[in-house]
Amino acid sequence: MKEEIDYARYDRIRPIRWTGDMLELLDQRKLPFTVEYVACRTASAVAVAIHALIVRGAPAIGIAAAWGVVLAARELDATAGAIETAAEAAERLEPVMQQLNAARPTAVNLAWALARMRRALANAGDDWRTLLFREAQAIASEDLAANHKMGKLGAQLIAKGSGVLTHCNTGSLATAGFGTALGVIRAGVAQGRIDRVFAGETRPWLQGARLTVWELQQDGIDATLIADSAASHLMKTGQVQWVIVGADRICANGDVANKIGTYQLAIAARYHGVKFMVVAPSSTVDMATPSGGKIEIEERDPGELFGVGGVRTVPEGVKAWNPVFDVAPSELIDAIVTERGVVERPNRVSMQTFFGH
Amino acid sequence: MKEEIDYARYDRIRPIRWTGDMLELLDQRKLPFTVEYVACRTASAVAVAIHALIVRGAPAIGIAAAWGVVLAARELDATAGAIETAAEAAERLEPVMQQLNAARPTAVNLAWALARMRRALANAGDDWRTLLFREAQAIASEDLAANHKMGKLGAQLIAKGSGVLTHCNTGSLATAGFGTALGVIRAGVAQGRIDRVFAGETRPWLQGARLTVWELQQDGIDATLIADSAASHLMKTGQVQWVIVGADRICANGDVANKIGTYQLAIAARYHGVKFMVVAPSSTVDMATPSGGKIEIEERDPGELFGVGGVRTVPEGVKAWNPVFDVAPSELIDAIVTERGVVERPNRVSMQTFFGH
Repeated sequence: MKEEIDYARYDRIRPIRWTGDMLELLDQRKLPFTVEYVACRTASAVAVAIHALIVRGAPAIGIAAAWGVVLAARELDATAGAIETAAEAAERLEPVMQQLNAARPTAVNLAWALARMRRALANAGDDWRTLLFREAQAIASEDLAANHKMGKLGAQLIAKGSGVLTHCNTGSLATAGFGTALGVIRAGVAQGRIDRVFAGETRPWLQGARLTVWELQQDGIDATLIADSAASHLMKTGQVQWVIVGADRICANGDVANKIGTYQLAIAARYHGVKFMVVAPSSTVDMATPSGGKIEIEERDPGELFGVGGVRTVPEGVKAWNPVFDVAPSELIDAIVTERGVVERPNRVSMQTFFGH
Repeated sequence: MKEEIDYARYDRIRPIRWTGDMLELLDQRKLPFTVEYVACRTASAVAVAIHALIVRGAPAIGIAAAWGVVLAARELDATAGAIETAAEAAERLEPVMQQLNAARPTAVNLAWALARMRRALANAGDDWRTLLFREAQAIASEDLAANHKMGKLGAQLIAKGSGVLTHCNTGSLATAGFGTALGVIRAGVAQGRIDRVFAGETRPWLQGARLTVWELQQDGIDATLIADSAASHLMKTGQVQWVIVGADRICANGDVANKIGTYQLAIAARYHGVKFMVVAPSSTVDMATPSGGKIEIEERDPGELFGVGGVRTVPEGVKAWNPVFDVAPSELIDAIVTERGVVERPNRVSMQTFFGH
């Protein structure tokens, strides 16, 4: 089996660009037909972009938020006169941190990235501006390195000749690059382990249809789109050996919050004897949340179910319920892959052994 | 519990209208924003309408096909000179019957309705034109009566205070009126058994979003739309006690072919201890097909997954797989409701006892 991966071939998109004086975010609402970056010059603009799904994907929103703090520090310097100490900066930046943190509630990476920025400030002296900047850079570059590592670790679990199904978008677009679950799929394809890739369209936002198959197309990886509700029928045909998904939060007992529909795929996979893999950086692990029942599930505007691309399909006056995440219990998960290693059949004990510290 | 149902309130839509000299089909592709009937003056026009999903729903396409045969008989009289005998008519109509039968492959009601039309001809003398006409009328009126009966039978299984989830559209639009699964839901609401109705949007064709919630709106029944992939998360919240769906074909062992996504709902329902009910007239039961593995599953144009309402959402060059039915195995089904009665926990033996003859 070829182990090395040509990352230049299998990772061509960057959703987040720091230009030196502003943050450019690839507007993922407009993909795949318009490739357009939105310029964010303030932390508020970053918070709005996170909330509006211009940038999405748990690792990517953490990275964007970190750059949001860098922007906030510059705003502070520009508007409030000289800040003397790191402690003063920390105090003044705290409301902005909270605004960024509130932009999306489910993914833990957002809070994790902001905690790193707070720690950088806490350890800083006069050099706090530089340390904040370096911390944001480190968050992004460590994410990319973690994805490369997870790609190889996850791919090792996959037998040659396998088919895989993924959900939502967990690729370069959702991260600093390469992707989490999609990184494993890229590595598996590059190493000749994976022959067939299926992607669920992922209603209501169609991340699978709009983003994942587009990303794979850039790499020249052949992928087949399915309706979300065709997943069980697909599994029954025997074409899929692994379901591979990302995560927005992994609890202390191994329960995983991820895009709505993940839970259903986990149930169906177990019913069919298909394996279920979750791929996420260790920053997604939240040992402070004991189990999935404790996770706040974001509910977005019901209007997201009323149409597509500005075309309304549902009559006026109809109610809808639009939870955008759900929780797959650890009992249905065969492997959690992080850059620190693989936890097979996760449970409270194995998670504590691996991540408790 | 109030038993009587005000059908005038709970059944306001007719997808199929015979005007005396043509068939009018409500164009279900244009609902809910445009209510427009398509005039069919020939059997070929009916076959095209069935294939194009202008009329859809297993019972409704059977009824439309029967009227198609009536139109074909008139075409024959108009173009081929006098037909003397019923046997001659039967021979001349056979190619049309086959054309109609080929319009959709999965639903058995289409073949069943055409078999009734053939039998009517076989038993006719000079009165074959009248008998064909009466048979088409009977197929439609018996379907409506069956739906009323099934509504009451199915509702009896539902405890007061229940919530239900349905999939696709199985209402007046899919039948001669009232509906199968949606008929049970209407009866359950009318009798005060059902407090909460949820409908999956049913990609790719959005029958749930475009048709089911619209139908229920006409009746003043409160319904909540969900993404198909939110079904398991909904079940986990405890708001749903029954999943209630229709069927396109029920096999001799109780396996049920129905709209893609049904299988996934059956798996999820069992995982959560939610009951699973299939509602269909006995004409949907196909004792000649031993099990679900023998059913031809229709695969439609992958393009149905590339967008909604003319808005393309998927990049050019992407492949898709678009099976539009799947099979729920009998082991996952708690009750099959037909107008002849209810088969609980269906299997080969109980199905044979009920339908073998």
